[in-house]
Amino acid sequence: MNLKSTIVAASLVASFALLSLNLSSPVNAAAQNVEKGTSLVSVRDTLVNQYHIDASRIAFNKGNGYVQVDGFDIFKPKSIINGATYDTADTLKAVGQKESIQHPLTFVLVHGAWADSSYFNGVAAELHKMGYTVYTPEYAGHGANASKNVTHEQITTSVVDYIKKKNLHDIVLLGHSFGGTVVEKVAEQIPDRIKRLVFFDAFVPQDGESMVDQFPAPIQDLFNQLRSASTDDTIALPFTIFRDTLANTASLDVAKAIYSQASPEPAGPLFEKLDLKKFYSLDIPKSFLYLDEDTALPQGPLGWHPTQSSRLGVYRFIEGTGDHISTAITQPGMIAEKIVEAGRD
Amino acid sequence: MNLKSTIVAASLVASFALLSLNLSSPVNAAAQNVEKGTSLVSVRDTLVNQYHIDASRIAFNKGNGYVQVDGFDIFKPKSIINGATYDTADTLKAVGQKESIQHPLTFVLVHGAWADSSYFNGVAAELHKMGYTVYTPEYAGHGANASKNVTHEQITTSVVDYIKKKNLHDIVLLGHSFGGTVVEKVAEQIPDRIKRLVFFDAFVPQDGESMVDQFPAPIQDLFNQLRSASTDDTIALPFTIFRDTLANTASLDVAKAIYSQASPEPAGPLFEKLDLKKFYSLDIPKSFLYLDEDTALPQGPLGWHPTQSSRLGVYRFIEGTGDHISTAITQPGMIAEKIVEAGRD
Amino acid sequence: MNLKSTIVAASLVASFALLSLNLSSPVNAAAQNVEKGTSLVSVRDTLVNQYHIDASRIAFNKGNGYVQVDGFDIFKPKSIINGATYDTADTLKAVGQKESIQHPLTFVLVHGAWADSSYFNGVAAELHKMGYTVYTPEYAGHGANASKNVTHEQITTSVVDYIKKKNLHDIVLLGHSFGGTVVEKVAEQIPDRIKRLVFFDAFVPQDGESMVDQFPAPIQDLFNQLRSASTDDTIALPFTIFRDTLANTASLDVAKAIYSQASPEPAGPLFEKLDLKKFYSLDIPKSFLYLDEDTALPQGPLGWHPTQSSRLGVYRFIEGTGDHISTAITQPGMIAEKIVEAGRD
Repeated sequence: MNLKSTIVAASLVASFALLSLNLSSPVNAAAQNVEKGTSLVSVRDTLVNQYHIDASRIAFNKGNGYVQVDGFDIFKPKSIINGATYDTADTLKAVGQKESIQHPLTFVLVHGAWADSSYFNGVAAELHKMGYTVYTPEYAGHGANASKNVTHEQITTSVVDYIKKKNLHDIVLLGHSFGGTVVEKVAEQIPDRIKRLVFFDAFVPQDGESMVDQFPAPIQDLFNQLRSASTDDTIALPFTIFRDTLANTASLDVAKAIYSQASPEPAGPLFEKLDLKKFYSLDIPKSFLYLDEDTALPQGPLGWHPTQSSRLGVYRFIEGTGDHISTAITQPGMIAEKIVEAGRD
Repeated sequence: MNLKSTIVAASLVASFALLSLNLSSPVNAAAQNVEKGTSLVSVRDTLVNQYHIDASRIAFNKGNGYVQVDGFDIFKPKSIINGATYDTADTLKAVGQKESIQHPLTFVLVHGAWADSSYFNGVAAELHKMGYTVYTPEYAGHGANASKNVTHEQITTSVVDYIKKKNLHDIVLLGHSFGGTVVEKVAEQIPDRIKRLVFFDAFVPQDGESMVDQFPAPIQDLFNQLRSASTDDTIALPFTIFRDTLANTASLDVAKAIYSQASPEPAGPLFEKLDLKKFYSLDIPKSFLYLDEDTALPQGPLGWHPTQSSRLGVYRFIEGTGDHISTAITQPGMIAEKIVEAGRD
Repeated sequence: MNLKSTIVAASLVASFALLSLNLSSPVNAAAQNVEKGTSLVSVRDTLVNQYHIDASRIAFNKGNGYVQVDGFDIFKPKSIINGATYDTADTLKAVGQKESIQHPLTFVLVHGAWADSSYFNGVAAELHKMGYTVYTPEYAGHGANASKNVTHEQITTSVVDYIKKKNLHDIVLLGHSFGGTVVEKVAEQIPDRIKRLVFFDAFVPQDGESMVDQFPAPIQDLFNQLRSASTDDTIALPFTIFRDTLANTASLDVAKAIYSQASPEPAGPLFEKLDLKKFYSLDIPKSFLYLDEDTALPQGPLGWHPTQSSRLGVYRFIEGTGDHISTAITQPGMIAEKIVEAGRD
């Protein structure tokens, strides 16, 4: 965004210089289109930077001279200089406001294990900037000063209560990681409030399975050892494993910073076998968002995709680049765009 | 492209301003290289925008001061300002024309089911702009007012006749989706006219199999139900399935626009068991182009890649990002570049 | 990089023009922040181009007005124009030097078969530019005038001797392709000198297996035929197979240029069954770097990832885009960045 802003700055500055000098030059004719007293601004930069419309949605129809959004002709720009289009801020405001949120959405983002609701702070801020409504509920056993003695049912209930209390309807309910098991159970209780479920590198246990059941045997053993080693029935991940398998694309400093905020996870809900018969009978549209460097589940026969994802039956698949834990924090804008792709109608 | 054009505009404008003012500045010395009356233009922007040479092919050899294309030293630019290279339009025209089409190719693009030859309009326009020759034949049972009562053999014959009538040789024959089964059978009839086969997320049935045989059982059942429900032995896809599994990366509006142009597909050819013994004996070079969010075949053991692709034996693999149906329409330039990567010598 | 340099050039030039003209304009107020005699330069462009800090590491914290690197607030920029930040060259030098190499690393890059140590010239130059220490040892049977009559043990010994002679410690030891088998055996001999092993699309044979054992049967047959056909127990790859399966994303000219430098490979070491018991008992951190268009091993059940990679046990996974042989040559900067991601602490 800074890169593009630099260009806007440079071209604006250059335009003013040109106007004052009134040079005779090949570009001058085009620049004359800039009427006295009316600044024209770059169509693309303005729509991208001010109205958060993804650059890939914007094109120029050379056949008829219209600017296109999503492949539809929208308006004829006032000026074209060397293939770049310019128009007034007012015109672009109208276009930007119309196109930026064609279909408003309300997202409810449910975090995973070893995290709390602050995990989605960056992503939620980006979604909000894009014009969407976002909620990031905290659930039982997580967040500051929470008692770690919780059941999966208490976790589910806390999210259901949150949604009911705020009276949310037509929500896109997203679960990350362990949050996948939570949104499955929440969907069983309040299916009519949910327009789409999004599983973001999230567990999709089959009926009667636990989250831990999704892992290969050696990792299940590790979880059992870590659980036994704790005094309060929680699991704390060793840093070396966290760094290489959950934050693999992060720098060491970022990995350490994220790790320093991780809290030991209540073990019980991770091992609970879940009755998911109702979930698998629900007719709610579903999406799976997969980051292709995510190795929280080792890639291969027991990996996120297509092993967990395919349990959703017919589902929308969206892929991005990143790891399990750090990318949503270091690249919240990219993740927000992927969440919109996964969650929109 | 607009972004880069904006930069060209800004730097040109700025250069004129600088020349007129004749400022004493650190950049001034470099700018003096711009001789009076001879405009220098950006090497990179000109080669990319006017001659459609992919930016990744262009580099600067700091060791000897040459501009490189594909890693080969090509020419010493007249001016270098802050690391960016500039030369005359004439020099760049010579370079651009030489490098843009080092190896001319003739593409014949064969569309898939639920589509017609207009499917490749955008991609063909981009290939044409890049200097290639492109044909997009319509085949039996498809296009405006076509009778839907066709066999796979009639489809094959119509493409063979098209290629013979236009007297095409040394073609790169590409099939998309169901078009894979078509180019297999076309190749059996006119192998000597084909220099390479490209399967673009295309079915590669084994000898004796149909297109429908490639799907998992539940989808085969769905096709059978949809076929039975039609009055003219065609299959019309429900929008919700089309939107989430074929146009998964598109916005709703784009998905709807594409869907509105889809025509019910003649069912017969999709279910025909194909004799492909001769195809599997042919010694034509082959490529598979795969978009990694394509879920027309559910990803996994029965997915496009490597299940369909590996049937080609030794083949060239090219991968991009996108879905089955919308990406060729919304990002025709990117797809054209991938097709060149897949089809070139 | 040239693209960004162009922008820097344009904005610098424009700034000078603006200062001299002292125009009254909306941008002028911001530009006034540029004090007389003190040039401000773009924060992003300077950190990226001069200090080789990846653009994705740099962000702007709108909450408090700080420039961030890796998500940490670093400094408050002197000027912000249309969202782009500017500061003095001195400030950015301090930041750049601190952030560019937070954690110095010493890389030892071990090439693969049909190559020599020059294979990593481009990548090594990029790593060096980024501030890292790099070594690219030549091993027995490879390089100019080498005798082709070598064993796997001689190859291993030559790398071990190289590392000992240069007295290298705390190295990141990377093996590419066949080089994977070499670094496995080197690690058995000098584990205490290695802080991390990186397998870059590299073979990870299991105990008692050879490199050739990793291939599907038809390719093993091909290797046997090619070996039998040679007079000096080497294997020379046919160009058509090299071009489509090892240099699949390259242009024909690049593929030919690389092929012309390939030397017949000593066959013996490729077929040697390796005792790897000690390797699999070592407790050295490991990474696997995978390029997703690499088909040197056919993708699928016997592919690089996760079949070879998963043998590393707990490992860090990094993915990029490219093929087996050409990408490290045509895009050395990108590969260098991926190697840093794979190799850093």
